[in-house]
Amino acid sequence: MHIPSLIEAKRDGHALSAEQIRFLITAYAQGDMPDYQMSALAMAIFFKGMSGDETAALTEAMLRSGTVLHWPKDAPMRVDKHSTGGIGDKTSLILAPLLACDGLWVPMISGRGLGITGGTLDKLESIPGFRTQLSESEIYKTLPITGCLMVGQTANLCPADKKLYALRDVTGTIQSIPLLTSSIMGKKLAEGLNRLILDVKYGSGAFMQTREQAQALAESMVSVGRALGVRSSVRLSPMDEATGESAGNALEVIECLRCLQGQGPPDLENIVLDLACAVSISSRAELRQMLHDGRAYAKFQHMVTVQGGRVESLERLHKIHRAPVIHEMIADRSGHLRRLDAGTLGRAVLALGAGRAKATDRIDPAVGVDGLRKVGQEIQAGEVLLRIHARSQADAEEAEKAIAQGVDIR
Amino acid sequence: MHIPSLIEAKRDGHALSAEQIRFLITAYAQGDMPDYQMSALAMAIFFKGMSGDETAALTEAMLRSGTVLHWPKDAPMRVDKHSTGGIGDKTSLILAPLLACDGLWVPMISGRGLGITGGTLDKLESIPGFRTQLSESEIYKTLPITGCLMVGQTANLCPADKKLYALRDVTGTIQSIPLLTSSIMGKKLAEGLNRLILDVKYGSGAFMQTREQAQALAESMVSVGRALGVRSSVRLSPMDEATGESAGNALEVIECLRCLQGQGPPDLENIVLDLACAVSISSRAELRQMLHDGRAYAKFQHMVTVQGGRVESLERLHKIHRAPVIHEMIADRSGHLRRLDAGTLGRAVLALGAGRAKATDRIDPAVGVDGLRKVGQEIQAGEVLLRIHARSQADAEEAEKAIAQGVDIR
Repeated sequence: MHIPSLIEAKRDGHALSAEQIRFLITAYAQGDMPDYQMSALAMAIFFKGMSGDETAALTEAMLRSGTVLHWPKDAPMRVDKHSTGGIGDKTSLILAPLLACDGLWVPMISGRGLGITGGTLDKLESIPGFRTQLSESEIYKTLPITGCLMVGQTANLCPADKKLYALRDVTGTIQSIPLLTSSIMGKKLAEGLNRLILDVKYGSGAFMQTREQAQALAESMVSVGRALGVRSSVRLSPMDEATGESAGNALEVIECLRCLQGQGPPDLENIVLDLACAVSISSRAELRQMLHDGRAYAKFQHMVTVQGGRVESLERLHKIHRAPVIHEMIADRSGHLRRLDAGTLGRAVLALGAGRAKATDRIDPAVGVDGLRKVGQEIQAGEVLLRIHARSQADAEEAEKAIAQGVDIR
Repeated sequence: MHIPSLIEAKRDGHALSAEQIRFLITAYAQGDMPDYQMSALAMAIFFKGMSGDETAALTEAMLRSGTVLHWPKDAPMRVDKHSTGGIGDKTSLILAPLLACDGLWVPMISGRGLGITGGTLDKLESIPGFRTQLSESEIYKTLPITGCLMVGQTANLCPADKKLYALRDVTGTIQSIPLLTSSIMGKKLAEGLNRLILDVKYGSGAFMQTREQAQALAESMVSVGRALGVRSSVRLSPMDEATGESAGNALEVIECLRCLQGQGPPDLENIVLDLACAVSISSRAELRQMLHDGRAYAKFQHMVTVQGGRVESLERLHKIHRAPVIHEMIADRSGHLRRLDAGTLGRAVLALGAGRAKATDRIDPAVGVDGLRKVGQEIQAGEVLLRIHARSQADAEEAEKAIAQGVDIR
C-alpha cells in the first residue's frame, strides 16, 4: 500500500477499505507515516467525508492502536456519557456517582478543556489531592471498589487518536464529522463499555453551531457504536445559555456538590436525570431520590477519597479557591432575561483564565462566573445578574464589558 | 498571524491576502511553519483553489524566497520556454541554441524526469562530462558567452518551491492549478526573463489529461506572468502520441542532434519552429535556415563545451550508450497507424529504466525506444514499428507487450 495513492483516493472521493484505513492508522501510530501525510489526509477527509463503514473502520483502528479495557464477564454493565462540551457543562461530575449508586460501573475517561469549553479533569483538579492520572492497573483495582472513576486518557489508550488530535488542532481539521466521531468513539469504546449516552449540544456555546451539524455528528456516533457493539442513546440539546449557574473550574465543582445533595439548579438536575434515565433501569423518581437523600454525594466522596482527593476540602473549596476579586454584575434595566449568550460568556471566562487558548496554557481554578440568572427569568434593574470571580479588578471589568454584549433584558 | 486560522480561512473558501501568503511562504521556507501545516494548506488549496491575485502573490512569494537572476540593462532580451512535459518531448535541447543563434539569451533552468515524463537534465547528462549544476556566478559568466545554457535549479533559486514541491509529491497535492502555476512560474521568473513560451500539453501522455485542464493551467500561468511583468505565449497541444521518433535519454539527445542539423523528424522540427516563432523577430524560414545550415548545431556544441561536455562524444553517443538488447517491434498487420498511445509508451519506457518512479531512482541513459512510426502513416505487416533498447531480452519483451496495448493499425 502506497500512502500518497491512498491520500489521492480519498481526495478524489473514493472510499478507503477497512484494511487500508487500518494500515494508515497503524503506520501513523508507529511513526511510519509522517505528520505531513496525515494532515493532508485529514484535510481530504474534511472535504470528502467518510461513509459509515469507513468511519467505523477508522474508529476501530483508533481503538486497536492501544489497549482496550477488559472487564470480568460477570461485572456490572459499564456505561459512560460523552458530552460534546458546552459552557458550564458539569453533568459528568454528578452523573458518574449517580449511576454508580444505581449499580452500574462508570469507567469515565475524560479530557481537558480547550477553547471556550471546560474540561472535567481541570474541574476535578481543583479538589486538593485529586489524581486524574491513574494507571491501567489502578483503574482495574479502583472501579470495582467505587463503581465510578474519572480519569485522564492513559498513554496506552488510543495513542493514535492522541497524536492525531494534536495534529488536527493545528491544521484546521478538527471540524470533520468522521474525524470527530472516531476520536470520541475510539476513546469511549476503549473503556470496554456496554452502553453509551451521547450528550450532543449545538448553538453559540457549543462545538457544533447548528442543530443539523449536531444531528449529523450524533447519527455518525450512534452508527459507529452500533457497528462496534455498543448501544448509544443521544440527547440533542441547544446550548445558547450556560448549563446551571456557574462556569469556571472550582466554581463548577462547588455547584456540583450542591446538586449531589439535591440543592442544584433545576436545569442542571433535569439534564443529569435525563441522561441517567437513558441507561438506568431505575425510574426518574428513584434517581432523583439518590441525589436528594445523600447517596450520590456519598458515592462522590468515596470516589474522591479513592482517587487521592481530600474529602474534607470539599466543604471549603470556595475558600481554597477564592479569587481576589468577586464582582457583581448588575442588571441595568428591568424585564425578562431574553438572552445571556453562552458563547460570549464562555469567551469571557476563558479570558479570565479558566480555560486554555492553547494546549500548554495553565488554567486558574478560582476564576469564572457564578450566580447566573437563567433565560426566561424576570429581572429587576439593580439586581445581581451574575458574579465575576477574577484575578484583578481590571479583569473583572473587562469580563463584564464582554458578557454585556450577550445580555438582552426586555 | 496565526497559521491554523489561515489554513481554516482557505479551507472555508476565503481568499488570503498577499501579505498573508507572503507570511506563510516565508515561515515555511525558514522552517517556522512545519510541513504538516503546509500539506494541510496545500490540500485546502487543492479543493478551494485560489484567485488570480492569490496565485500571483503565491508565485511572487516563491520567487522572493530565493535569489532572482539580474541581467545588465543593455543585455539582449531573455526568453525561455516551459513545457508541461510529455513523452519524447525534447524540444528544449533544440530550441535553446536556436533562439541563441537568433541573438536572444536563454538562461534555461530545467528539471529532472519524474513519472512517465522525461527531464531535460537527465537527457543532457548522457553527454559525457556535461555539467548541469552550475553555480549562480557560473551562470552569470556563461550566458553572455554562449547565449544559452541549460542547468538545474540552484540551491538559492526558489528554495520555498523546492521544499513545497517535494512535500506535494508525497501528499496528493500536485494536481492543483494555483500550486502548479506558482511552482512553474516562480522558477521561470527567477531567471530574470522578458518573455516566456508555455508549451502546455494534454492527453494520455501528458500531465494534464484534458484540454480544459490544460487551458485552465495555461490561462493561470499567462495571468501570473502578466501580473509579474513577463509576457507569455501559449502553445496548447495534444500529446496522444510521442513527440518525434524516440523516447529515452541518450536516444532523445541523438534525435536532437539530427534535428539541430536539419535532419529531424518533421513533427519535432515543426514544434520547435512554432515555439521559436512565438518570441523571435526572425521569420519561420530564417529560423528553419539556422537549423539547416549548421548554425544551431554549432551553438549547441559551443554550449556543451562551455558546460564541460566532450563535444567529440556527440557523434559517438549511440555507441557510448548502446543498450545490450535492441529489439525490433514488428507490425503484425497492414493498415494506417491509428494510435501509438503516448501514455502506454511512456510507462513502458519508464519500466525499461529510462525514468524515475520516485525521485531517488537512478535512470539508465541507454534504454528507451526509437524509430517510432507516426500516427497516420501507412504500415505494412512485417515492417518495423519501433525499436526497443533494453537491458535484457526479458525487459524488451515485456516492453513490447505493454506497448502493443496502445497500438492500433487498421
